[in-house]
Amino acid sequence: MGSNSNNNTTLQDLATLAGVSVSTVSRALNDHPLISTRTKQRVWALARDHDYPFKPTMPAGPIGAVGSIAIVTPVMRGRPLPLSHPFFLELLANIGEAARERDCDFTVSHTAPTSFDDLVANTTTSRADGVIFLGQSTLHDEFNRLAETNARFVVWGAQLPGQRYCSIGSDNLLGGGRATRHLARLGRKRILFLGGSDPEATQRRRGYVEALAESGLQADPDLIVPVEFELESADAAVSGLLRRDIPFDGVVAASDLIALGAMQALRRGGKSVPQDVSVVGYDDMLLSRLSTPTLSTVRQDTFAAGRLLVSRIMDKDDHQESKRLPTELIVRESCGG
Amino acid sequence: MGSNSNNNTTLQDLATLAGVSVSTVSRALNDHPLISTRTKQRVWALARDHDYPFKPTMPAGPIGAVGSIAIVTPVMRGRPLPLSHPFFLELLANIGEAARERDCDFTVSHTAPTSFDDLVANTTTSRADGVIFLGQSTLHDEFNRLAETNARFVVWGAQLPGQRYCSIGSDNLLGGGRATRHLARLGRKRILFLGGSDPEATQRRRGYVEALAESGLQADPDLIVPVEFELESADAAVSGLLRRDIPFDGVVAASDLIALGAMQALRRGGKSVPQDVSVVGYDDMLLSRLSTPTLSTVRQDTFAAGRLLVSRIMDKDDHQESKRLPTELIVRESCGG
Repeated sequence: MGSNSNNNTTLQDLATLAGVSVSTVSRALNDHPLISTRTKQRVWALARDHDYPFKPTMPAGPIGAVGSIAIVTPVMRGRPLPLSHPFFLELLANIGEAARERDCDFTVSHTAPTSFDDLVANTTTSRADGVIFLGQSTLHDEFNRLAETNARFVVWGAQLPGQRYCSIGSDNLLGGGRATRHLARLGRKRILFLGGSDPEATQRRRGYVEALAESGLQADPDLIVPVEFELESADAAVSGLLRRDIPFDGVVAASDLIALGAMQALRRGGKSVPQDVSVVGYDDMLLSRLSTPTLSTVRQDTFAAGRLLVSRIMDKDDHQESKRLPTELIVRESCGG
Repeated sequence: MGSNSNNNTTLQDLATLAGVSVSTVSRALNDHPLISTRTKQRVWALARDHDYPFKPTMPAGPIGAVGSIAIVTPVMRGRPLPLSHPFFLELLANIGEAARERDCDFTVSHTAPTSFDDLVANTTTSRADGVIFLGQSTLHDEFNRLAETNARFVVWGAQLPGQRYCSIGSDNLLGGGRATRHLARLGRKRILFLGGSDPEATQRRRGYVEALAESGLQADPDLIVPVEFELESADAAVSGLLRRDIPFDGVVAASDLIALGAMQALRRGGKSVPQDVSVVGYDDMLLSRLSTPTLSTVRQDTFAAGRLLVSRIMDKDDHQESKRLPTELIVRESCGG
């Protein structure tokens, strides 16, 4: 771009090159609404080619973008969530498609918030129309404070008691219960729960505990195992249980990735799915349809989620209501019925 | 944000609220380098809260972002590539991680270029430091013209004859040859190629044809089948061959997704992989490690690709050399040896 190079190009030079007046060049560089898109593009291209310093006056997005949405990722175990996380990526793709349908660009921030000040910086220091936070992580109280400002934002995640901000997420309590009841109906007696301490997994675990009670099954603390939203974490946890000879015949996993990790460990441990152990995941990622056995799962509607998240930012008269999206149980091979 | 609401807030009001001078407020709103980050954030938050119109003067990214990278997706069969495409998403995640390591944001544009004018618009109408185009699609000549302007851009894709722009991509010719020679060494005689007419699949097909000749195998036009980079497209093509009783005992696929679609059709058609047919994919996506049988594949180094693509934009003294990344053959269960 050479914007640091020595440069003597003047507005007059640009006007001569573009064949328009100096005031038209000036207006074009300031993205004035009265100047045509075609003229702006010609002037901007010339300004770039001649290293004329004008970038701060340019619009945020390519011409024609109706708006721009900022996406901020959560912190997981003290580090920003890896962008390669498959569920995050599928959600990002759905937000992106919803943004595109409305001619919006989306920007993924390099930052991950860990404090109220971070949240304020995320929402005030971007040109975007608003910010979608993927997951509230441990910042529930901070999001409540942020809701008292004029910041436009929405959170993908669980709906929590005393919540004053807008969230879109799946009905985790019902979803966790649905998976558990299905395994109980299949006659499974010792059902393992694999999930972490984040708000979403916590609600899914509560659904699991409630469904066990309804089904007349005893909750066994040995069968509630904390794991991260990662293949390796689930694989290690299940391998540990097998080594300690703790018996179980069902697995309710807080995500598909966790379920796939569990199946990996079961296979290595000589257990067959679904004959010895029935497994149900959560999410319904592409992966779950392609694994062997194919994975039964609680489907999160990320397509609807993408549209709702974008609408909460772009529809200025939107009522900003939180929404718990219904889930579906998708029965495939991994639970055997 | 209510930026259209009636508003009488003045610079003086903001100055009083922020406890600073009017000129400090003015400078903060214009992102002046002499004003501290803390003061800017306070002034911007107040300006937002009071609907003071200042967005056009804000910096492009959140404070602390060293730069910003625009990503433009290709057109596939006349439509923008679906963001949910798994290989695209893995590449996007790797670009994103590389951007983060350098404290850069990245923006995914809502547009997909189909002409030289579109390319000019993509590179001139964004505040980003430069543009990464994912795939050259049919715009090779147009990218050559774009290279004559001052635009800063790089293309993920094949390196083509007479190319004057910078591209980063995998060594498709060698990769396609590597997969094919492996199947020939396993004694496979009738090896199918599945891939499209885009520059990358075309080079992989050329590698396949050359490797067949080297191995003393006859190329059979019936065994070169055009498919898109999609599961369904590959599934339909392979189902068609099985219906027509065209015999084959090996598959070289231009992507993992194509290979997985082929395996789906083979399973449905009662053929076992790798006993009846050996299958090799291309990419080494997460999916290929989790399928059953696990998929042998030609690994593209998307981690290195992400870093190189970002470096071509952000390192201003970068020599802008194109690079063909080496590939690796990863042998798993699907080719039986």
